[in-house]
Amino acid sequence: MESILERINSPADLKSLKRDELNILAKELRSYIIKTVADTGGHLASNLGVIELTIALHYHLNSPVDKIIWDVGHQSYAHKILTGRREQFHTIRQYKGLSGFPKSKESVHDIIETGHSSTSISAALGLALARDLNKEKHRIYAVIGDGALTAGMAFEALNHAGHVGTDLKVILNDNGMSISQNVGALSRYLSNIRTDPVVHRIKEDLEFIISKIPKIGHTVSRSVERVKDGFKYIFLSGILFEEMGFTYIGPLDGHDINELITNFRNADLIEGPVLIHVNTRKGKGYIPAEKQPAKFHGVSPFILGNDLSKKEEKKPHFSQIFGETMVRMAAKDEDILGITAAMPEGTCLNLLRDAYPERFFDVGIAEQHAVTLASGMAKAGKKPVVAIYSSFLQRAYDQIIHDVCIPELPVTFAIDRAGIVGGDGETHQGIFDLSFLRIIPNLIIMAPRDENCLQHMLYTAVNSGKPAVVRYPRGEIIGIEMDEELKRLEPGKAELLREGEDLLILAVGSMVYPALEAAKLLEEEAVKAGVMDPCFIKPLDEDFILKELARYKNILIVEEQVLAGGFGSAVLELVNEHKITDLNIKRMGLPDHFIEHGSQSLLRDLYSLNARGIKTAGLELLQKKRNDKLEVSYGH
Amino acid sequence: MESILERINSPADLKSLKRDELNILAKELRSYIIKTVADTGGHLASNLGVIELTIALHYHLNSPVDKIIWDVGHQSYAHKILTGRREQFHTIRQYKGLSGFPKSKESVHDIIETGHSSTSISAALGLALARDLNKEKHRIYAVIGDGALTAGMAFEALNHAGHVGTDLKVILNDNGMSISQNVGALSRYLSNIRTDPVVHRIKEDLEFIISKIPKIGHTVSRSVERVKDGFKYIFLSGILFEEMGFTYIGPLDGHDINELITNFRNADLIEGPVLIHVNTRKGKGYIPAEKQPAKFHGVSPFILGNDLSKKEEKKPHFSQIFGETMVRMAAKDEDILGITAAMPEGTCLNLLRDAYPERFFDVGIAEQHAVTLASGMAKAGKKPVVAIYSSFLQRAYDQIIHDVCIPELPVTFAIDRAGIVGGDGETHQGIFDLSFLRIIPNLIIMAPRDENCLQHMLYTAVNSGKPAVVRYPRGEIIGIEMDEELKRLEPGKAELLREGEDLLILAVGSMVYPALEAAKLLEEEAVKAGVMDPCFIKPLDEDFILKELARYKNILIVEEQVLAGGFGSAVLELVNEHKITDLNIKRMGLPDHFIEHGSQSLLRDLYSLNARGIKTAGLELLQKKRNDKLEVSYGH
Repeated sequence: MESILERINSPADLKSLKRDELNILAKELRSYIIKTVADTGGHLASNLGVIELTIALHYHLNSPVDKIIWDVGHQSYAHKILTGRREQFHTIRQYKGLSGFPKSKESVHDIIETGHSSTSISAALGLALARDLNKEKHRIYAVIGDGALTAGMAFEALNHAGHVGTDLKVILNDNGMSISQNVGALSRYLSNIRTDPVVHRIKEDLEFIISKIPKIGHTVSRSVERVKDGFKYIFLSGILFEEMGFTYIGPLDGHDINELITNFRNADLIEGPVLIHVNTRKGKGYIPAEKQPAKFHGVSPFILGNDLSKKEEKKPHFSQIFGETMVRMAAKDEDILGITAAMPEGTCLNLLRDAYPERFFDVGIAEQHAVTLASGMAKAGKKPVVAIYSSFLQRAYDQIIHDVCIPELPVTFAIDRAGIVGGDGETHQGIFDLSFLRIIPNLIIMAPRDENCLQHMLYTAVNSGKPAVVRYPRGEIIGIEMDEELKRLEPGKAELLREGEDLLILAVGSMVYPALEAAKLLEEEAVKAGVMDPCFIKPLDEDFILKELARYKNILIVEEQVLAGGFGSAVLELVNEHKITDLNIKRMGLPDHFIEHGSQSLLRDLYSLNARGIKTAGLELLQKKRNDKLEVSYGH
Repeated sequence: MESILERINSPADLKSLKRDELNILAKELRSYIIKTVADTGGHLASNLGVIELTIALHYHLNSPVDKIIWDVGHQSYAHKILTGRREQFHTIRQYKGLSGFPKSKESVHDIIETGHSSTSISAALGLALARDLNKEKHRIYAVIGDGALTAGMAFEALNHAGHVGTDLKVILNDNGMSISQNVGALSRYLSNIRTDPVVHRIKEDLEFIISKIPKIGHTVSRSVERVKDGFKYIFLSGILFEEMGFTYIGPLDGHDINELITNFRNADLIEGPVLIHVNTRKGKGYIPAEKQPAKFHGVSPFILGNDLSKKEEKKPHFSQIFGETMVRMAAKDEDILGITAAMPEGTCLNLLRDAYPERFFDVGIAEQHAVTLASGMAKAGKKPVVAIYSSFLQRAYDQIIHDVCIPELPVTFAIDRAGIVGGDGETHQGIFDLSFLRIIPNLIIMAPRDENCLQHMLYTAVNSGKPAVVRYPRGEIIGIEMDEELKRLEPGKAELLREGEDLLILAVGSMVYPALEAAKLLEEEAVKAGVMDPCFIKPLDEDFILKELARYKNILIVEEQVLAGGFGSAVLELVNEHKITDLNIKRMGLPDHFIEHGSQSLLRDLYSLNARGIKTAGLELLQKKRNDKLEVSYGH
């Protein structure tokens, strides 16, 4: 028999269902998502949490005339399936397949593109203000998680929305955690609303008191209205939001489709901004995910019913080496502190948390605060390390400049997921950091080629007494032997890893091993390629680099980063400064467009950022030179 | 007779004063600041507002053991004078003189360096957590304005501070406005606390009701405690902060030194984070500033008792041309919208506000929200223009990438104060934007050389259908004739403004007229210099630029920006891509350190970013070439 899900090719199809069919649909959707994500990998727990919410929204609203905005957007799978993308759903996060996030190019129902957290209320308010100016009437619903609400920009948007008072619904999708456990006073506040029986008892008690005083007479009658105002403060659990200018509805059961639809209808009758507080459960309906929602946040393909990944990972990831090195350094140096913005597991800073909880700080999704907090700690003599993904560091750019580098405070940035990240795609590629960081004065920037370098660079950074960055990629380590002793690297010292004659490959971080492999491949073509690892992107080992450039003449520069303004440009600047004009330099890196989703290895192949690509570029570089020489000799 | 002020050379001297002497000191300080700022220019209104607060803080605390952190820091003049810098105070904001903001290098009492808004709570919390780990006991007071509190990162910090619960005082310096009029729900909320009599009446009414029910008996007794909890919500005016986990004290009279000191003492007895709400008046004690606090926020030298500046400005500023062009475009195109983050006067977007209030949006100090709000408006078919200072745009870097450029939405960024800004110094120099913006795909970047270009570029940007930047400097316009019709520039089209033979000067924006002048000066030296204005930093007019580079061979590139990653680097990249190696290129711009404060003209002279500097560099470039040639001919 055809399932209900198979009949849904647009929100219109959904609207024709009977109410009780909606629950069956939820069940089918849930099993469809679990089954598919087990095959493909992707975000699971968050998507299972919003299935009923998604159905209720599309049943109640008329998308795309009415607008649904998914904050972060990794919870938009049900939305994608219900808006005509059911049959492509198995391609999710694969190269040329569906994006794991809302994408306008994919569907008219994906109104606002997201990926990073906490932008939805701002974007929704922009849509709402434009709608008002256009004298249109459609409804706008933003769906934001409780974790995303801890980011400052969500507060900025609430503050502005409460001020202008236009019609706008914000659904607070409250699952009691963002990606990891939620932190902050706001989280405690939300948790009180959810669970505190005192709030309810106060209400009963006060009603009882009032019931006992029927005869106070007319002097009170004037007061009653005011008392009601006062009661509002007591009875209403959403005070915080009411104070911000929102009407508060909730908390609702986010898995009860009827309750949701009824309340959406009520909410539409209210003028001005409304906050609808919905309790959901991450991983709902899949027991392993309910039990370990952080683990099932973003997953690789896995075996159904099992809580382990299908692919046993052979080697640890760079993140793990980072976490282990933090613990190791912290054991010997009590000034070492670790700060994360809601990514303890992703960054492996949880290892520090477990070993030295008092020196671990999870500030919630609050990158700006994380960096400036670290600057305060550094000012007080501590050695704070901010562990953060490259693309999220963009959120704290001004703080790096203003609070860390101008006062030259010794904060270390451990930048994870630098370079191509894979399935998360455009919004998450960490491909700008070398360019936007190296222009900041007073900052040391390092990129390790392997896990051994990573540990030494971290140690060097925290003991440099200066602002310092260590930038490393997502994914498995190289698998080399680790030095037992941590050592401080000489600032700005590059390493010539392989001697050559015809060509020098200058490779940054993740590109060093592919460059070494390329050098071997080139040997087969009778090309002797040297390989240099600059180790430091800033300061540059100017004399050594210039000396070697002069020796080789033919130079290939490779980095997993945009070409514009990157390490290659730093070398061009150096060469230009020294008025050297006789070099044959080719830069390899990422072109001037956003990098789509797809596996890391596929994308690296696509952009020639692998041994074969480097080899080919090397041959072309030499070939061109040879051709030039030929032309020159023929010409004269 | 020696004044009290003259006896104060450190906070210790202040502490030895009698209480009634403190008020005299306040008077003397106020007149000292007014007199000095009238001579030197600087921030006035904000400093006059915190004189009593500063005295009370230094009287109560023991700086620098106890820490005072000034948010933004432009209100630290009294603090500077009281901490040993009275005699240098007349050098404020002058080159090599005192900074207009707290600077660690200047004094041990300047704990945290500031300049940009809303960082103080984060930094203070960092200090507090480090103090706790170090098992120290000192007190930490952050002073933040009500305007600064609208920025998301202040909320992130409150949220975290409320969560961890360490001892920390946050003084909310509430003057009912940030730099301009305050906006947002939070502002309305604060204003209610200050003025709403209902809050007080509710309290009286409820007390009356309770007094009428003495005999309800033991069933209620259990309730009383809970009712008290409930009352807390009613009586306590600082609910918002209490919900965030802070103990709330206030509002206090910020000009009553005794009241402040008494409450600071009480606050020190409270464990955990305390918010002390202090009402102050911007410009207090100087009538023209009280009447027009926005005008007296940052001032040029002025005549005492007069509300006008001493120096009548001859020409309007670029900001004004921006504002006028906005109004002009808005008159013909109802989709034009203007957004500012609390800078309507500074950006001249107030002209749009006055002409088309419904299409003007001041979001408060909330750059992140401003940009994403604009992206929502653009998605809905509008043509939003975000007017923002270059250095503040750093706050919204991720939003430019994530919310505007990835979905390629037509938001225009009008970047004011790009380049050297002068007296505000390090934190406010707009010297990174070309580097951090040009690496973003899908973004058009323009820099006008004069006001006529500015108007056309703005018109081009808003009608491009794409994310676009127009970057212009602080200060007076050139004073040329303006075209009557606004026109759309051809995307990426450079202009050769002057033909030459020996040398081509490629100059960006503010450097074009100095380059033209330099070309004239070079003529006297028998050097024929061409001058090209690229107009577009992105996309580059590649073919035309390459053609002209090949023709001239000797190339001087000038930009008012850091050299790293800037326009000059873009040209080096272009040349490298095309394997051109026979060019003699010199790049002029700012070196790799933060640029100190001082007048714009002085700093431009210092870094050779003027006609004379360009001329000299041009001669050197040619001289080097000539010497090379000589050497070559002698050699052979």
